[in-house]
Amino acid sequence: MTLHIHKYGGTSVGSLDRIRAVAGNVAKRRDAGDDVVVVVSAMAGETNRLESLGQELSDQPKAREMDVLLSAGEQVSAALTAMALDQLGYRARSYLGWQVPIVTDTNHMKARFECIETKRLKEDLAASVIPVVAGFQGIDAGGDITTVGRGGSDTSAVAIAAALNADECRIYTDVDGVYTADPRIVDGARKMEVVSFEEMLELASLGSKVLHPRAVEYAANSGVTLRVLSSFNEGEGTLITFEDANMEQPVVSGIAHAIDEAKLTVVGVPDVPGVASTILGPIADASIEVDMIVQNIGSDGTTDFTFTVKRRDYDTAKGILSGLLKDLGARDVLGDNAIVKVSVVGVGMRSHAGVATRMFNALAEENINIQMISTSEIKISVVIAERYLELAVRSIHKVFELENGDIAE
Amino acid sequence: MTLHIHKYGGTSVGSLDRIRAVAGNVAKRRDAGDDVVVVVSAMAGETNRLESLGQELSDQPKAREMDVLLSAGEQVSAALTAMALDQLGYRARSYLGWQVPIVTDTNHMKARFECIETKRLKEDLAASVIPVVAGFQGIDAGGDITTVGRGGSDTSAVAIAAALNADECRIYTDVDGVYTADPRIVDGARKMEVVSFEEMLELASLGSKVLHPRAVEYAANSGVTLRVLSSFNEGEGTLITFEDANMEQPVVSGIAHAIDEAKLTVVGVPDVPGVASTILGPIADASIEVDMIVQNIGSDGTTDFTFTVKRRDYDTAKGILSGLLKDLGARDVLGDNAIVKVSVVGVGMRSHAGVATRMFNALAEENINIQMISTSEIKISVVIAERYLELAVRSIHKVFELENGDIAE
Repeated sequence: MTLHIHKYGGTSVGSLDRIRAVAGNVAKRRDAGDDVVVVVSAMAGETNRLESLGQELSDQPKAREMDVLLSAGEQVSAALTAMALDQLGYRARSYLGWQVPIVTDTNHMKARFECIETKRLKEDLAASVIPVVAGFQGIDAGGDITTVGRGGSDTSAVAIAAALNADECRIYTDVDGVYTADPRIVDGARKMEVVSFEEMLELASLGSKVLHPRAVEYAANSGVTLRVLSSFNEGEGTLITFEDANMEQPVVSGIAHAIDEAKLTVVGVPDVPGVASTILGPIADASIEVDMIVQNIGSDGTTDFTFTVKRRDYDTAKGILSGLLKDLGARDVLGDNAIVKVSVVGVGMRSHAGVATRMFNALAEENINIQMISTSEIKISVVIAERYLELAVRSIHKVFELENGDIAE
Repeated sequence: MTLHIHKYGGTSVGSLDRIRAVAGNVAKRRDAGDDVVVVVSAMAGETNRLESLGQELSDQPKAREMDVLLSAGEQVSAALTAMALDQLGYRARSYLGWQVPIVTDTNHMKARFECIETKRLKEDLAASVIPVVAGFQGIDAGGDITTVGRGGSDTSAVAIAAALNADECRIYTDVDGVYTADPRIVDGARKMEVVSFEEMLELASLGSKVLHPRAVEYAANSGVTLRVLSSFNEGEGTLITFEDANMEQPVVSGIAHAIDEAKLTVVGVPDVPGVASTILGPIADASIEVDMIVQNIGSDGTTDFTFTVKRRDYDTAKGILSGLLKDLGARDVLGDNAIVKVSVVGVGMRSHAGVATRMFNALAEENINIQMISTSEIKISVVIAERYLELAVRSIHKVFELENGDIAE
């Protein structure tokens, strides 16, 4: 008997019909012989609705109370999913974070898992009861409700899979799996059957919405086999697992893009130590996340310092930088919030030279100007003007011959 | 320092503006020197919304899961109310049933309170923190969420008041207090300053929506002083307390009415023992509540057996009775679902003869036919045709001179 964790996201439990379909899917896997523990998100839109109630009430809603408020969303979907299973003739039982219990630290709204008690879940499985666990939430040592941050239900599922030593953690979502590029942009985008944790982590961090990066990292660290698959369609989805040393790797596995980016440049900063922290300190203090950072030293002893932020933080960030100009002795602040980031990812590029060149050539042939470049061992990211997004993704997808699944050299 | 429990119903916390007003009211009482524990219902409409989700999903939703589902409503309003107090600069902390904990028996959807742990609430009060407790919910010995049935937040507040030995349990609602009759029907209806538990219990059971009868009973049994008052307007509301033997009682304190009634008569039942249970057994089995029961023995050795049910149960009940006709040897089933019940209540009528006569005369003068009569020590109820409701209530209100607050003899 294999033990699978099934995680269903907000869209998958977004209506009573969808919840019935989820119950049907769980039932089918149960009949096929799998032991199943279900983890659910809140119904689509519910977390946002609750969050705005809190935000409308208070400029700075207390994090403890936000957690009480938000966790009600998963409470509702867990109860409904258990009812739907019961209606199909399967014994099921909902569990809230505190009932498992799923113990976290005390950092409200961004808690980290500390320990998951598996006794009740195991008793249920032994008694042929399907546990339905509310994702996203836990309880701290003081008995307060905590939540683990947005997208956290993926991580809840992985944490439960790790605690139960499950055979597979299946993330049911609204796509069929992980693709070589966004199928809405690239016609020939191909679903990958297997992808490594490292690649998935880069893809997730770079804008692929399929899986939360934290869940990927947690799974890799705790040895949980992940599978992303559709809760709407049949299919085996994409398996995310450890890189097989014997497996010949394509140079590039997939292309990710992020569209909600913005770029800021402080022009003419004197090239002295401490400039970066003077610029980024106040940005971090404002809880603005910085992604790519590039610094070019000019010939006149000054430097241009450029970084990217999420588009929603653009105005705030620009305001902060303008206030720093005088202290910095810099000339100006420039910005552009019509940019996107396009990245190629693949463990194969470790051992292959020329990936960057091939990517840059593909862009040059389409006359797409590269504004920023950032690289890691298994990915290359470029920032380009927003209007070139589709063209860039398609041309890169083509140059690495991702359509046919052949190994590009 | 006095300790008050404040209970705010669904309308009082029905919007963010209303929740802000609730916080303002609590703050005002706090500033005036009261220690306050707040108990809240779910936002108006929310319990119904959640309930119908469950009912749509399952013909017979599991009671355990319904409790998980429904309790999310009070969870949201408790968190929001705590946030609103925090926003006003008052320290507040929400508590769900399991966090207090409020321990109940295991009867899901109609649990009874067993024990309320007061340690955390007292610690909060000592530290000038305002506890905001989610009404309606508790936890059973097995760690499952329970709810105490509809209207249960009133009872939650009373139970907490009893456990904390509070000076007063203040039920904030959308009316100014308890009236001698429904002010929407009787212009001269007068707000009572004091009413006895017994009278309040009769009024509540007879259709006055102000307080849940169970809460009144709990308060009487545990010696909790109740006060009903408006969360929208200023005013001292109505105090509900023990009958003062020295206080001269008006014969009739108030008039209640219930409009969602229906009447069923089994005609020509042979007058033999066991008939009543043969008729009412199947009705009870269908979970239909029976209110008034009247049986008249005819001259021909048969009897007419009449009882009232809630209007929503009328069709079901009629169907059940029709199926019994043959077994009973009865002639026919008649019914009327356009009836109402009007009741006069007053502890004073114990020692005064002639109350019934005066009431019946008032109705006769308006040519209102009395279809059924039922009496207790401190109330008289009649069933009349629905169309006479307003006329009946007004004429009875007048005959007992309730407008001016004088003692009617």
